[in-house]
Amino acid sequence: MTVEVRPGLRQEVLDANLTIPQVGLATLTWGNVSGVDREAGVFVIKPSGVPYEDLTIDDLVTVRLSDGEVVGGHLRPSTDTETHRCLYLAFPSVGGVTHTHSTHAVAFAQARRDIPVLGTTHADTFNGPIPVTPDLTAEQCAKDYEYNTGRVIVDFLEEDDQRAVEVPAALVANHGPFTWGATARKSLEHAIICEAVADIALHTLSLGVTTPPPPHLLARHYTRKHGPDAYYGNP
Amino acid sequence: MTVEVRPGLRQEVLDANLTIPQVGLATLTWGNVSGVDREAGVFVIKPSGVPYEDLTIDDLVTVRLSDGEVVGGHLRPSTDTETHRCLYLAFPSVGGVTHTHSTHAVAFAQARRDIPVLGTTHADTFNGPIPVTPDLTAEQCAKDYEYNTGRVIVDFLEEDDQRAVEVPAALVANHGPFTWGATARKSLEHAIICEAVADIALHTLSLGVTTPPPPHLLARHYTRKHGPDAYYGNP
Amino acid sequence: MTVEVRPGLRQEVLDANLTIPQVGLATLTWGNVSGVDREAGVFVIKPSGVPYEDLTIDDLVTVRLSDGEVVGGHLRPSTDTETHRCLYLAFPSVGGVTHTHSTHAVAFAQARRDIPVLGTTHADTFNGPIPVTPDLTAEQCAKDYEYNTGRVIVDFLEEDDQRAVEVPAALVANHGPFTWGATARKSLEHAIICEAVADIALHTLSLGVTTPPPPHLLARHYTRKHGPDAYYGNP
Amino acid sequence: MTVEVRPGLRQEVLDANLTIPQVGLATLTWGNVSGVDREAGVFVIKPSGVPYEDLTIDDLVTVRLSDGEVVGGHLRPSTDTETHRCLYLAFPSVGGVTHTHSTHAVAFAQARRDIPVLGTTHADTFNGPIPVTPDLTAEQCAKDYEYNTGRVIVDFLEEDDQRAVEVPAALVANHGPFTWGATARKSLEHAIICEAVADIALHTLSLGVTTPPPPHLLARHYTRKHGPDAYYGNP
Repeated sequence: MTVEVRPGLRQEVLDANLTIPQVGLATLTWGNVSGVDREAGVFVIKPSGVPYEDLTIDDLVTVRLSDGEVVGGHLRPSTDTETHRCLYLAFPSVGGVTHTHSTHAVAFAQARRDIPVLGTTHADTFNGPIPVTPDLTAEQCAKDYEYNTGRVIVDFLEEDDQRAVEVPAALVANHGPFTWGATARKSLEHAIICEAVADIALHTLSLGVTTPPPPHLLARHYTRKHGPDAYYGNP
Repeated sequence: MTVEVRPGLRQEVLDANLTIPQVGLATLTWGNVSGVDREAGVFVIKPSGVPYEDLTIDDLVTVRLSDGEVVGGHLRPSTDTETHRCLYLAFPSVGGVTHTHSTHAVAFAQARRDIPVLGTTHADTFNGPIPVTPDLTAEQCAKDYEYNTGRVIVDFLEEDDQRAVEVPAALVANHGPFTWGATARKSLEHAIICEAVADIALHTLSLGVTTPPPPHLLARHYTRKHGPDAYYGNP
Repeated sequence: MTVEVRPGLRQEVLDANLTIPQVGLATLTWGNVSGVDREAGVFVIKPSGVPYEDLTIDDLVTVRLSDGEVVGGHLRPSTDTETHRCLYLAFPSVGGVTHTHSTHAVAFAQARRDIPVLGTTHADTFNGPIPVTPDLTAEQCAKDYEYNTGRVIVDFLEEDDQRAVEVPAALVANHGPFTWGATARKSLEHAIICEAVADIALHTLSLGVTTPPPPHLLARHYTRKHGPDAYYGNP
Repeated sequence: MTVEVRPGLRQEVLDANLTIPQVGLATLTWGNVSGVDREAGVFVIKPSGVPYEDLTIDDLVTVRLSDGEVVGGHLRPSTDTETHRCLYLAFPSVGGVTHTHSTHAVAFAQARRDIPVLGTTHADTFNGPIPVTPDLTAEQCAKDYEYNTGRVIVDFLEEDDQRAVEVPAALVANHGPFTWGATARKSLEHAIICEAVADIALHTLSLGVTTPPPPHLLARHYTRKHGPDAYYGNP
């Protein structure tokens, strides 16, 4: 049985996945993007273990939101599928999810340090630090590990959709970044920006930071792009 | 109503904008270049939110210097347009302005440290450190924020055109680099060099610097490229 | 006299060698990959000193496992050939070997520090730190130097094939990484991952690490890709 | 008057110059390679201020060794021409010279630290640290500055051709790397390797180095590529 998804979703998910290696966020086959169709109750995700250069639209896998069953496609879905599903179930605003092992964001995850807000590049997109989650427990690793990887993010954000909207990224401790957004494309953009601000933050920290950025500057940048008074970046 | 600009200006501004991603200075749509036609009283700038790969000469926006009104083009100008306009109004020698969020220059802006003169690569172009501006006040952020982003640079340079000529770049605190030059192309070259010297400076500082470069060496490099005795780099 | 090898091996070895510069692991002609045919008692390896852009399948050299004699090809084999041969003789599970001078892995080799396990990116492939070998002695350098470069790895691993399977990489002190795997392609993938985890580890260490990753997380990642319960990455 | 040079020299010099941006050693028009024809008493060098993408074989300039006069070509030679000439006059073994502002080598020049020998990647090419020169004096900067930039290298090496052969590179203090070799192509390779070993050394030093590499290992690597017992890298 194959569930149909809304027109354009599969192409958007394919394009977002193919962008991962183009922008330098992937090593080998690492990284995956999905996009959801809430009306159909499914999401579309990259298959497991297929090299980006071989990936076609027919390889994408459709997964049912309610129980994780494959309902479209001839390949196995990404091993991280259950993490994506957990995020979709917890946060109604999320339309797309991206996971990468991008170098600088993973470094923060491994050092178990939040990516701090050091300037407007960060504040344009994230209304606060990008947090590192607590550890998964031994029990969470033993059973339903991939689902629990999402669970540790959801629990940390207290299942608060508004928090997920304001900072659409988290670093799973000793693992790496998961980002999300209103669409698959937006979740990928957040992955790109998460990596860029991690890179800049590492250099900034190596120079030493003695004064935090003024809060009114950060607030200005976040609100000019987000919320009712946004005026930035619209053609 | 559309104001005509001098032949070649729009192509030069397009080319400079398209060079930004080619030389690795941009993430997503970040970064913009403008060029001025002082006789016509306008400048030409990148539109807001258009990906570089889609940008054509017809997308460029013409803006009036005196009041910031759009007088050519069918799109909204870059959100940073008012910052460009402020710099053109303050410094008569400026023919082009570039803004990026390039990694290493932003790191200095976020650490609120000037990019120091550590060698001839810097002194070939900049006759002194690339300064970080003071903070914008809460008032400057609340109203006319983008214009005030230029204002804080202009005030820091005491509206002195000669200082703007000698060091054609500044880092807005916790934000990033703005560079300028006699033409749009020159302002872009200064953005490229600003990022290169920031990158080298970060590595140099990590090795430790105990002795400053001899002033006669720096002076020699600046004066062989600039001023009445220049002899460098002309074909 | 030319020894025939199994179909596909030469193409696989060529492709793996050509991938080295594409993924940024090589400067000039540095780096080489080989693949073994144990039934024929030979391995196929890159010739010495041929630039990657000129390398064709006919340039590959076939070498006898038992004594290192060239038994196919018209060029000299890579100078590192004896190191490859030593590894094949010691570890029956090894089907391919890769050597590079990739930047971050060599930095660990030069600092004589193991690449520590700091997260799941590492644990997905390597079931423990990537070790630095002891020094070669003056005697080992004076005679059969290249063979002894393999010997120092083999001795360090106590000629234990299982250890070679669990951590398919080693850093020769003050030299650089050697990696191996079930096939030439796998050995190359391990070289790519070794460099990626070294890069991330350098950034992680610069941020400071106070808490090691939980062992149950690392074990989960290793076992979901390796051993009887593996379920990751298979299409 | 135009002096003819030996067949192939101009093409070799063109190719070496065009390789500079391809391997990431150049920003804008920075960097230049020359090659000498000692029989004709001239060398061929890149013109001043021509972008690499526009450079053709007809743009190259021929300069007389004895007095620096242009004896071929319609453009001005590189501003660094006199530095090249000084090196050719001092060291009879030198057939080509390369100058770049490559990031990591310049960082060492600016920190006024030799690039230390930390492993075999360095020892394969350079039989000792790559030294930083003393400062140019105010007098050396005031007159014949570019020639004196070569002079400070030559003086530091005590005009000893054998030293120039064993370590074919130097960092001019607060400026950057000059490299040389038997041919233009070889001088460029040494520039590529100088930058690679500087990059690796920076990372190595950030990890901390407590034990120097064993001298017998370094000697083995240098002598297997250089001198009467060389056996490495010849096809």
